[in-house]
Amino acid sequence: MKVVITGGTGMLGRRLALRLLANSELIGHSGDKERIDRLILVDAYEPVEPTPADPRVEIIKADICDPKVLDKIIDDNVDSIFHFAAVVSGGAEEDFNLGYNVNLDGTRNLFESCKKVNATPRVIFTSSLAVYGGFRDIVDDTPLLPQSSYGAQKAIGEIMLNDYTRKGFLDGRSLRLPTIVVRPGKPNRAASGFASSILREPLQGSKAICPVSPETRMLILSPRRAVQAFIDVHNAESDHLGFRRGVMMNGISPSIGEMVFALKDIAGSKIADRIIWKPDSEIQRMVDSWPWFANGIIGRELGFEPDESIEEVVQSFIEDELDGNILV
Amino acid sequence: MKVVITGGTGMLGRRLALRLLANSELIGHSGDKERIDRLILVDAYEPVEPTPADPRVEIIKADICDPKVLDKIIDDNVDSIFHFAAVVSGGAEEDFNLGYNVNLDGTRNLFESCKKVNATPRVIFTSSLAVYGGFRDIVDDTPLLPQSSYGAQKAIGEIMLNDYTRKGFLDGRSLRLPTIVVRPGKPNRAASGFASSILREPLQGSKAICPVSPETRMLILSPRRAVQAFIDVHNAESDHLGFRRGVMMNGISPSIGEMVFALKDIAGSKIADRIIWKPDSEIQRMVDSWPWFANGIIGRELGFEPDESIEEVVQSFIEDELDGNILV
Repeated sequence: MKVVITGGTGMLGRRLALRLLANSELIGHSGDKERIDRLILVDAYEPVEPTPADPRVEIIKADICDPKVLDKIIDDNVDSIFHFAAVVSGGAEEDFNLGYNVNLDGTRNLFESCKKVNATPRVIFTSSLAVYGGFRDIVDDTPLLPQSSYGAQKAIGEIMLNDYTRKGFLDGRSLRLPTIVVRPGKPNRAASGFASSILREPLQGSKAICPVSPETRMLILSPRRAVQAFIDVHNAESDHLGFRRGVMMNGISPSIGEMVFALKDIAGSKIADRIIWKPDSEIQRMVDSWPWFANGIIGRELGFEPDESIEEVVQSFIEDELDGNILV
Repeated sequence: MKVVITGGTGMLGRRLALRLLANSELIGHSGDKERIDRLILVDAYEPVEPTPADPRVEIIKADICDPKVLDKIIDDNVDSIFHFAAVVSGGAEEDFNLGYNVNLDGTRNLFESCKKVNATPRVIFTSSLAVYGGFRDIVDDTPLLPQSSYGAQKAIGEIMLNDYTRKGFLDGRSLRLPTIVVRPGKPNRAASGFASSILREPLQGSKAICPVSPETRMLILSPRRAVQAFIDVHNAESDHLGFRRGVMMNGISPSIGEMVFALKDIAGSKIADRIIWKPDSEIQRMVDSWPWFANGIIGRELGFEPDESIEEVVQSFIEDELDGNILV
């Protein structure tokens, strides 16, 4: 199998790549598990973290906004594409044009490249619960009313993916992700970034700012569970999805206060005291427009599993990213 | 006031233009009724019907796919824009690229032109009940799952309109229309076109083909009521719409059999017998993917009124388009 990951050296792309290289297989067009022979990581940015050292891996520095670039990468032999490349929520809100260029035009360029080849690649589109807006509780049938440009662009990507799938140009699946927590590495421009910072920085000896109230709830999913969900949605039978290609990934919904309590419980008061509370009304507004509770039936029926608790989320970060070491 | 209508010499655009010229006013930015001084009709096609002879009218032949064209037309003085220019359902299904070019890129070009000017024009976007898919009964909160490229493009237009409105680039409102019946003039490439043909052609002495079963229901609205709904949604207070800029226009839902019965009742058997039943599975499939019953609360609260009966629909066609004369 030949697999492409856009945003392939980014946070989720890299972790998916490592998991795919370790497991070495995915469900192919035959319906059976097939070996991954080539893994192409496309990214517009220089890798921040070490890239996988594996003979099956090829890294291509390229911007998906340029359609010619993707036409060279997506050929008749590509079996599966995981599409992570995107401008995140805060970035898309700050720079309206950039958000539409990357998240809408870049995504459409990818779908257009798939349309041109003599193949029907599986395309896994990274969507977001930001496609919903103004609803506290969401289910599979909740209408999409995004309250951010990022959410709008993701909703548009989903609709295009459905249409390209219906026309037989590709076999698309969208995964609507909750906020990924604990996101490793440096903060990015996502409005949700603080939810990772308030756990990540204190565990590594630094202070972190919390811009929202302790009562605020966030729907979250660990990177470990997210990577598994991408493999699960890739491997799902197309007929199980039918004409709804978007699957909501359920998360857990701790309040920020509960997240801080879990941090204290696992790592101690000294570490939890590294959080500085500094309200930011714009971030509070955006976070409040996202849903608090998700009860998607389709994802659950397909066997997609969110984390069991906020404690699991914190522990999996300490295990996967800190090799078990916290900086007291 | 300066008002622009894209698709302004087309079926709905022209009828709206005539109504606006007759009434001479719309709610302006002041919140009060203002006089219409200039009415610009933009259309890519040569007019099929006579264009309004009025000194306030300017007709510009231009393709909205060219962004430069709209930048010249949309200036700081434009108060209101009615956006009708589109590739219809059958056309967008047949020619995938053309549909996306006109319905997505052309619409985005219009919104981008509005973003550039020092004004916040009201933009009325013609959406369609084709944004829904797979649901027989629809309400305001029914999720958008379009089952045609046309429906996908209209759903995308609505999402962009919401986002451009939220950012303050324009004051957008989308009107989700049922199928317009009786559509005057020649058949177009809309998959729904037969619903008008089976009434229009027999009343004018010709035969018409009905490609769907008599049990098929269609949500319909007369051109007369549709034009009024566009004026109503334009004049609605922005705050009444809130962050949901899309309003569903309720229609009535006669079966095709009931439509034929009404024709017979009003015009006689000889005329109704001019319908030839010739099933077409592809048209049946598309029509079946559209909703049968609409119960939108928001539009009703805003006072938008559908036709009262299929008889009213047939009678208003005979009055408005045939000057009361039917061809026996």
